[in-house]
Amino acid sequence: MRAPLLPGITGPADVRGLSTSDLVGLAREIRGFLVDKVSSVGGHLGPNLGAVELTIAAHRVFDSPRDVLLFDTGHQAYVHKILTGRQREFAGLRQAGGLSGYPSRAESVHDVIENSHASAALSYADGLAKAFALRGEHHRRVVALVGDGALTGGVAYEALNNLGAAQHRPVIVILNDNGRSYSPTVGGLAAHLRGLGDGAHAGNLFADLGFAYLGPVDGHDLAQLDDALRQAAALRRPVVVHCLTRKGKGYPPAEQDEDDCLHTVGVVDPATGRPRSAGAPTWTSVFADEIAAIGADRPDVVCLTAAMTHPTGLGEFAARFPHRLFDVGIAEQHAVTSAAGLAVGGLHPVVAIYATFLNRAMDQVLMDVALHRLPVTFVLDRAGVTGPDGPSHHGMWDASILPVVPGLRLAAPRDCGQLREQLREAVDVADGPTAVRYPKAAVGPDIPAVRRIGCCDVLREDPAARVLLVAVGPLAGPCLAAAAELAAHGVPVTVVDPRWIAPLDPALVKLACAHTLVVAVEDTAATGALGGRLAQALSSAGSDTCAVTFALPPQFLPHASREQILRAHGLDAAGIATTVLKRLTRPEEASA
Amino acid sequence: MRAPLLPGITGPADVRGLSTSDLVGLAREIRGFLVDKVSSVGGHLGPNLGAVELTIAAHRVFDSPRDVLLFDTGHQAYVHKILTGRQREFAGLRQAGGLSGYPSRAESVHDVIENSHASAALSYADGLAKAFALRGEHHRRVVALVGDGALTGGVAYEALNNLGAAQHRPVIVILNDNGRSYSPTVGGLAAHLRGLGDGAHAGNLFADLGFAYLGPVDGHDLAQLDDALRQAAALRRPVVVHCLTRKGKGYPPAEQDEDDCLHTVGVVDPATGRPRSAGAPTWTSVFADEIAAIGADRPDVVCLTAAMTHPTGLGEFAARFPHRLFDVGIAEQHAVTSAAGLAVGGLHPVVAIYATFLNRAMDQVLMDVALHRLPVTFVLDRAGVTGPDGPSHHGMWDASILPVVPGLRLAAPRDCGQLREQLREAVDVADGPTAVRYPKAAVGPDIPAVRRIGCCDVLREDPAARVLLVAVGPLAGPCLAAAAELAAHGVPVTVVDPRWIAPLDPALVKLACAHTLVVAVEDTAATGALGGRLAQALSSAGSDTCAVTFALPPQFLPHASREQILRAHGLDAAGIATTVLKRLTRPEEASA
Repeated sequence: MRAPLLPGITGPADVRGLSTSDLVGLAREIRGFLVDKVSSVGGHLGPNLGAVELTIAAHRVFDSPRDVLLFDTGHQAYVHKILTGRQREFAGLRQAGGLSGYPSRAESVHDVIENSHASAALSYADGLAKAFALRGEHHRRVVALVGDGALTGGVAYEALNNLGAAQHRPVIVILNDNGRSYSPTVGGLAAHLRGLGDGAHAGNLFADLGFAYLGPVDGHDLAQLDDALRQAAALRRPVVVHCLTRKGKGYPPAEQDEDDCLHTVGVVDPATGRPRSAGAPTWTSVFADEIAAIGADRPDVVCLTAAMTHPTGLGEFAARFPHRLFDVGIAEQHAVTSAAGLAVGGLHPVVAIYATFLNRAMDQVLMDVALHRLPVTFVLDRAGVTGPDGPSHHGMWDASILPVVPGLRLAAPRDCGQLREQLREAVDVADGPTAVRYPKAAVGPDIPAVRRIGCCDVLREDPAARVLLVAVGPLAGPCLAAAAELAAHGVPVTVVDPRWIAPLDPALVKLACAHTLVVAVEDTAATGALGGRLAQALSSAGSDTCAVTFALPPQFLPHASREQILRAHGLDAAGIATTVLKRLTRPEEASA
Repeated sequence: MRAPLLPGITGPADVRGLSTSDLVGLAREIRGFLVDKVSSVGGHLGPNLGAVELTIAAHRVFDSPRDVLLFDTGHQAYVHKILTGRQREFAGLRQAGGLSGYPSRAESVHDVIENSHASAALSYADGLAKAFALRGEHHRRVVALVGDGALTGGVAYEALNNLGAAQHRPVIVILNDNGRSYSPTVGGLAAHLRGLGDGAHAGNLFADLGFAYLGPVDGHDLAQLDDALRQAAALRRPVVVHCLTRKGKGYPPAEQDEDDCLHTVGVVDPATGRPRSAGAPTWTSVFADEIAAIGADRPDVVCLTAAMTHPTGLGEFAARFPHRLFDVGIAEQHAVTSAAGLAVGGLHPVVAIYATFLNRAMDQVLMDVALHRLPVTFVLDRAGVTGPDGPSHHGMWDASILPVVPGLRLAAPRDCGQLREQLREAVDVADGPTAVRYPKAAVGPDIPAVRRIGCCDVLREDPAARVLLVAVGPLAGPCLAAAAELAAHGVPVTVVDPRWIAPLDPALVKLACAHTLVVAVEDTAATGALGGRLAQALSSAGSDTCAVTFALPPQFLPHASREQILRAHGLDAAGIATTVLKRLTRPEEASA
């Protein structure tokens, strides 16, 4: 048996140094490495298995970092990491202090884009190509590896429109066409790409926009790839190299997974690709169940997804009401504005989306939905700290930005029962947008309310309390535990769940005024959070109550587990209790 | 001489009732009406002159409101307004209480989209077509009139991708191709459309995405238009009708205007299209001058515009440094992310954009720029109350949303000198994004500072003051006038200009703590404004200082002049003084 090649690969030069006859073996080793490592710690599997040969070929034909390799999205960059000296760090993948699941400039000079919202790489490429041209760095080439799914995003097309017109700036687009984003790619583009792949089309969208087109190329054939990329580099103009690949290639459990080719996995059995342990109910699964029930009760409710039917929990709804589920592609803007159109047409659309991705469509939420007072419900999964996906995936922004939208009502349910109840309340609103936010996490047991004041649920009431904990969403549990601990220290505390965090409930302001210290505890960025709006309202009302915000700092937070990150920022029971005690005993120190 | 036809047109049925021989005369009358009315009150001229025949033909072939006509953007809907019973109201166009410059549902059942950010209509059309299909309203047709400029926006492509794949849902896209947005349309698309117009192309981007394609059609030939639209309607599938038009058609001063075909005008002489009076220096003209000077000093500074080189004040920079000016089309997302790429490549990009349009790219600001700590400067024209363009154009959101972006520094200059100084400071920042916001207005005389504390300029200082006015940006003038009035009433006041409104300056917090009442006076939405963040910081610091925000209410504000709107919300000198006095004497009432 031959000695393995992979341990000898410490950088792109080593890849270029291999003979072509070694490459098939290298690709096989990389696939084994990926299945072994990712199945043991979790991560993106299917996309990387499909990009093995593409990445090898790109590193042989181009010379990173002189030439710039951009990955859209970054979750297909594992092979790039393996080939650029980071093999040994895969045991710590996506764990606190370990390797990021995306390119990371702190890890390597070969990494450029850290953000992993889809469809951005071509715009970076345009900017880089312009910069190299202006600075006279004509020897540097810009190469973007883009999935066909990412091409359903509008910003990718904005970039194609600009790139195609600049015939003198050579940008090489390697189109990794596996026919899928999470799910099969949708729209006229997908059909067009299938036609190009079959050689059946006379038209060519890329040529229409000014690109040279090379392909289709078998994206798992290293010789074909090498030829095509060298030809592309020689053209010295914008070019698309159309590569046909298979998501999950070479790993039967991924190739056979119809939902998403094992796009992302937790810890799985490498033999089967199946989870090692059965999952507890999650916020997503509760939503999945309830929206299907609402679908049965309300024929006017339709659902929209931006290429993530299953990850956002719309699988059951889709199965039961296929004509009322619209997958629009990785196209959040279109998801929101077509939802506005559906609402104008008399339906109630529910847009299910990851919180961080809604920023793609903030203008549409404001202008196309809210300005028109249209009843559209946004369901924001992965709101708050998300965990191993890191800074571009934490849902830290929605709770600051959405309260700025006039007429929008934003709910943060504390438990399974409240998620069901508030989702029902949201789809009953007829005169403007609503949003419901919840994290990527298991959902705990239901937390009963003592009583309701205005929109708020009082969860624990102490008539002697000078301290009010405003427990937002899933932090109700830690707040109650902190209140018990504080009571044990002789500090009586009342705990209230505002339920609807925007607009500010006058009943909450009134309740807050009756306390000396009000602490809003929130799984979101502190700037613009409920605590800030409460402080503004209290100050405006001339109240002496001190209102503080326990939330996430105004920073991009690295990857780690959700629990680790919340604890690190004092958002667990012990942290909350400790900080409240410090506030009461040494206020100067606490506010520093 | 024939009796005029226009006065007899009270609705679409009257248009359909005319004989074809009458239509050329009607078109001529409409052009005369447009020039007469718009030159006397100001408004969008060039786009509407180019859409006269298109709109007549659409109202003859389709039956609004049963069929839905969508205008992208709404500034090309004046002819539609004329034909749907609103001729008499044109004297009040864009004035307080008068006709909106865009479609308005309050005005007419024939109006659907009120927002006039470009490129949204096709997504509405997709949603409406889906709703009609689900509700069994198969007789209703959806018609979107879209400019070629609007097709450079990514959301339009997201919509085309979805529309083209739905062969059973008939949506009719009338492409109003005049080769321009404000300026000539850019990119591979523009070249492709020119090819289609010349009949020269084999490829067809619309056909690639699944559409039937009809055209090119002479968009000023009513018979051709009538034929093409009837043919399109009969196809019962997604179809693009490609109409070639001339912006400003039939009005020589507009046809001959090379910058933008008199896209928007103020009050002008109808004979020449020239302004009746010479303009005073504006914030935009000061920026135009300073960025050109910076361009001369700093070869690494490049500028980007989303199809608005002249309106954003980049004309002189473009003339002097043509290779360092990038017009990316109506593509704000690409503007921001390609700026990120330029910054990675070692340049300092300045993205000049209207404040309200930056919302299109909020995700890109957060993820592509800020997460990467890239030095990109955003220059936000038309920040705050904008005036006659109404709710979709007021720049009320940037000052609430941008402070949420980690590491972003946001400046609000108070005068010409500060705009120059802070713009220079912004382009000197090397480790993250900056933004500079200013309104659409004349710029007043410079306001000297007494001294600087931290980043803040103290503009008026009274050692006896218990009241601190935090005067944001151009409201410094009204704040100083209010302070003088309050002093005359025996209320000593200090006035400070924070200059950089995000992040919050610790020196401002300290200064605020030394006062009893702090009033932040801001030309932006109150939610998320500086006053709120100041209240949050003061409360967190345990300060007893009462911090209140005088700003715009959390609503979409209708059109009126900037002065009228500011006054209506108490943001003029008298309003500020009165509200402060009320606060001091009757706080309960003031906070209600």
